[in-house]
Amino acid sequence: MKKANKKVNAAIIIIGNEILSGRTQDANVVHLSKWLNELGIKVEEVRVIPDVEDCIVNTVNEVRKKFKYVFTTGGIGPTHDDITSRSIAKAFKVSYGYNKEAYETLEKYYKPSEFNDGRKKMAKMPDKASLIYNPSSGAPGFIVENVYCLPGVPSILKSMVNGLKNRISGGKKILSKTISVSTVESEIAKPLEDIQNKFKNIEIGSYPFFRMGKVGVSIVMRSTEKNQIADCSKQVISFIQKKKIQIMERE
Amino acid sequence: MKKANKKVNAAIIIIGNEILSGRTQDANVVHLSKWLNELGIKVEEVRVIPDVEDCIVNTVNEVRKKFKYVFTTGGIGPTHDDITSRSIAKAFKVSYGYNKEAYETLEKYYKPSEFNDGRKKMAKMPDKASLIYNPSSGAPGFIVENVYCLPGVPSILKSMVNGLKNRISGGKKILSKTISVSTVESEIAKPLEDIQNKFKNIEIGSYPFFRMGKVGVSIVMRSTEKNQIADCSKQVISFIQKKKIQIMERE
Repeated sequence: MKKANKKVNAAIIIIGNEILSGRTQDANVVHLSKWLNELGIKVEEVRVIPDVEDCIVNTVNEVRKKFKYVFTTGGIGPTHDDITSRSIAKAFKVSYGYNKEAYETLEKYYKPSEFNDGRKKMAKMPDKASLIYNPSSGAPGFIVENVYCLPGVPSILKSMVNGLKNRISGGKKILSKTISVSTVESEIAKPLEDIQNKFKNIEIGSYPFFRMGKVGVSIVMRSTEKNQIADCSKQVISFIQKKKIQIMERE
Repeated sequence: MKKANKKVNAAIIIIGNEILSGRTQDANVVHLSKWLNELGIKVEEVRVIPDVEDCIVNTVNEVRKKFKYVFTTGGIGPTHDDITSRSIAKAFKVSYGYNKEAYETLEKYYKPSEFNDGRKKMAKMPDKASLIYNPSSGAPGFIVENVYCLPGVPSILKSMVNGLKNRISGGKKILSKTISVSTVESEIAKPLEDIQNKFKNIEIGSYPFFRMGKVGVSIVMRSTEKNQIADCSKQVISFIQKKKIQIMERE
């Protein structure tokens, strides 16, 4: 049964030199954060770290104590730079070796001639890890306590998180309402601050944008409280109309 | 004069609830990392944190001691949720108030009737901050010791970093060579590991991809040592050809 707990939070650790070097644009944070929002889990920190054992061990050990859930992405493939599983074992001070269930899964997935050392390596995990099913490419992810280890390839990650829903206890769904207006931030800063001071349970964000030659600001209200978002939104619309600012879009 | 120092590193702190919630896809890490690579500065950590004063203060204070350069993005605009400048002042235990030069810059940039409190707020900075010129929208960024504070809007950030080149001492440029091959990772894991063990100054990464119906792996070699990359690359090509794997692309 899911508990209604506003403080259900998470951190994401992106493991990969290719993200740090700027070679690859991360796409997993957006997907994981939106999916966790739906489950009532707020992502409160993201770290991107290199494929370096000490960094992984220290970061995981720091972060898993601070947040209810930790999700790692990357580094669970077959090559030499895939060191996440070994590092997680080290972080939890447990042994690292073949996981029987993972080994059998991969053994069934590949033809005997294809089940080489690289692929066998993907069955090596921290002791007592619980598997995360991979419907795309066979090799499972795994869970140790509150740390969920997923692959870095976005399409595979997406296919795997769908199956995790029942293995996570979220809180109340985080709702969001956006009002985009045709103005600049400084014109609405004061009344927006006054509204923020009245609604302590709502996180009000103000984000300027420049799209197709148009300048505007998106006012985003986020909270688990539906009625309060509705009240807050009414007050925002009221001052926007009073200032004769055009509303471009509501989401 | 730039020193040739391999250990010139940096961290990026992305400040913003909109990135953590998944509403906005960050685009600044890719840009900053590539730009820093060119200057011989390796980004070794990225953190994404919320618009919460304590988080900003603690993260900045932790990270600025660990890395030669720290770049923050976001939270220097005119609205209530823009709290980066105030938080940086707190982190460095200096006062926070109008920066004379920033105030005068903004005063010139706006018509007198437009220079409202929100815009004036953008001239508030930590004491003794050094300004970063903003050719796009007037409001400057700033530097305190080794912490460089930039805005979150990618187009504005891009226009500002160009002017920072002479205010940063980089190391040797980080070179990279990519060989994309038509195979799967497990087929090349062993020989790639053997080559990695021979070239300690080269970071070899292996990244699977699925593009336009084609499966492949990008082998990326990164180092400041041009000749070693050339030698390493020869050895990679040699085993690829021996295994009769097709080379799809070289960059």
